[in-house]
Amino acid sequence: MPKKKLLVLAGDGIGPEVMREAGLVASWLERERGISFDITEDLVGGAAIDAFGTPLRDSTLQSAKAADAILFGSVGGPKWADQPFDNRPEVALLRLRGELDLFANLRPSIAFDPLIDASPIKPEIIRGLDVMIVRESAGGVYFGHPRGIETLEDGSQRGINTEVYTTREIERVARVAFELARKRNNHVTSVEKCNVMESGLLWKQVVTALHEREYPDVTLSHMLADNCAMQLVKKPSQFDVIVTGNLFGDLLSDLASVLPGSLGMLPSATLGARTSDGRLPGLYEPIHGSAPDIAGTGAANPLAQILSFAMLLRYSFDLEEDAALIEAAVAGVLASGLRTADIMSPGMARVGTRVMGEAVLREL
Amino acid sequence: MPKKKLLVLAGDGIGPEVMREAGLVASWLERERGISFDITEDLVGGAAIDAFGTPLRDSTLQSAKAADAILFGSVGGPKWADQPFDNRPEVALLRLRGELDLFANLRPSIAFDPLIDASPIKPEIIRGLDVMIVRESAGGVYFGHPRGIETLEDGSQRGINTEVYTTREIERVARVAFELARKRNNHVTSVEKCNVMESGLLWKQVVTALHEREYPDVTLSHMLADNCAMQLVKKPSQFDVIVTGNLFGDLLSDLASVLPGSLGMLPSATLGARTSDGRLPGLYEPIHGSAPDIAGTGAANPLAQILSFAMLLRYSFDLEEDAALIEAAVAGVLASGLRTADIMSPGMARVGTRVMGEAVLREL
Ligand SMILES: CC(C)[C@H](C(=O)O)[C@@H](O)C(=O)O
Ligand SMILES: CC(C)[C@H](C(=O)O)[C@@H](O)C(=O)O
Repeated sequence: MPKKKLLVLAGDGIGPEVMREAGLVASWLERERGISFDITEDLVGGAAIDAFGTPLRDSTLQSAKAADAILFGSVGGPKWADQPFDNRPEVALLRLRGELDLFANLRPSIAFDPLIDASPIKPEIIRGLDVMIVRESAGGVYFGHPRGIETLEDGSQRGINTEVYTTREIERVARVAFELARKRNNHVTSVEKCNVMESGLLWKQVVTALHEREYPDVTLSHMLADNCAMQLVKKPSQFDVIVTGNLFGDLLSDLASVLPGSLGMLPSATLGARTSDGRLPGLYEPIHGSAPDIAGTGAANPLAQILSFAMLLRYSFDLEEDAALIEAAVAGVLASGLRTADIMSPGMARVGTRVMGEAVLREL
Repeated sequence: MPKKKLLVLAGDGIGPEVMREAGLVASWLERERGISFDITEDLVGGAAIDAFGTPLRDSTLQSAKAADAILFGSVGGPKWADQPFDNRPEVALLRLRGELDLFANLRPSIAFDPLIDASPIKPEIIRGLDVMIVRESAGGVYFGHPRGIETLEDGSQRGINTEVYTTREIERVARVAFELARKRNNHVTSVEKCNVMESGLLWKQVVTALHEREYPDVTLSHMLADNCAMQLVKKPSQFDVIVTGNLFGDLLSDLASVLPGSLGMLPSATLGARTSDGRLPGLYEPIHGSAPDIAGTGAANPLAQILSFAMLLRYSFDLEEDAALIEAAVAGVLASGLRTADIMSPGMARVGTRVMGEAVLREL
């Protein structure tokens, strides 16, 4: 098996701390499962601003393009709050998504049964939750032009952004959703605001046509974004796969991820198109942020980073078995009662980042 | 006291049924409190499409401009799902907001203590909830140009919408939020995506400047829209007044309104600018929709429509005392154990629209 080229971008805040534990899992795979990684590490986000003045160097972008997959930590923090709009830590992530055309952001939201008490939602509503949000991530209002702030003659200003979606952009992300649904519970909910936005109307039409043409075996329903926000709280079990645009996906996936009450457990993947030689480029990151408030205290939960690595193995490296091993190890550690502070509950054993990481290795 | 000109637009589905009960409250006020209304009724939404081919006749728009306030029911339903984009029932509402420049949509989300068990959220998180979302409602991506769907040379299409906010639009809605906060708990949270959208960056800058200049006594914080969606579920008690743009406000206010578990209880107001002769134009509507599934069954909850009427009295007619009377009557009816189907819980007495309306009158 050729070496897998992995770019590791730990980023800011707790990023490097949780990434260290994912690195130990990678070493274990090399040792015990005969996989070999060719790992490059680089700075990104605030750390790259501090070192080089820019959140993403061109050389880092080149490494990203050359890599088989990217394992990403998290970026940002109050230290860089005053950076100009085009030089914020987040720009690194947006540029990676845009330039590598990583258009399908997969955001699973799963209620881990042992953690169910941490949910803000009543247990009877949240138990068994398993929703996959497929968020378009290389288009929409995040990337549309014209954009910017202009100053009018009287000194007042106008801020402008443009939401644009093309048939091709909608089709390719909808296809990802339909394919995923086939391996899950065979249902896709497509979400937009077609009652107000023409871009949403096109979205709905294109998804409907693609469904009829290529995925008639999957059930499809349409939902307005405001209603989707309500339904996620009211009856999340009605969803299997949700597909939506970049901006709605940003809100709805964050909303979905807070429902299980264990944000520190949730990974994500952002995938591009399969290349002609069969590779599936992807960037994998925990959905929790850089958590500057607890950075350096050793209290961060490394499980989302480790589960992001498992997603990477599954999607970009086609190592389903190894991904499942890691996921089982994480479940085992939870069952054994170990908890980091963010998922702590009475009667459990509170541990820090390192002990949690070691426990996963032991389970493996 | 001169007659108050009231335009009543009951609309579709359960709209006319719940409006009837609000009308009885208006008659009670005329009888018992010496207020006289000059009431005009008209068709709107699907009902107007059926009768006249358009969701909002120009003559209705003229009545709306001439009225002191508008009491609105709800519009839409599957019957009109195939209307062209520019002729959907919802267009009536959007045109009224746009043409009357009703820019401040006030969406209170309140947890009624006797209904707390109906909430999907754990009682310890939701108890005492009292958030006011001030959503900009006459601008943003709902009204921005260019917009539409264009067909490209290869037959594929592009859907476009434009998010635009000007200094003036942001200031006037932020002012409403700061003024409301002063009468409440003195805290405003301004919500945007300034890390991704320049229109959001301008939003943040304008709100910050206005705060420093005119409202330094109110506390202000800023929050990203995705984080706000999470925080509303995780810790809604941190909010007092939230001010945000049209699209984020659409999602976040619907999200906030589902938290207490009693959507059928929540009113809303959409206000314009105070006129030179001191009037405050406004449109008042329950936030529940037209609920076509239960229309005609007599099961609809009329309380949100009645509470919308109370808001109308408070804001547009400056009749604080009468508004409070009605709100107290609604609280009394709930305390007495009467429940419509949507808020039913074990041990309570289930009633229909008419009995609920009569109970409010009796309490009054
Ligand atoms: C960091 C930020 C630019 C980003 C976004 O808004 O897309 C984040 O919220 C996310 O969801 O990945
Ligand atoms: C009916 C629809 C156009 C409207 C909107 O999106 O604004 C509704 O959802 C609302 O929130 O009042």
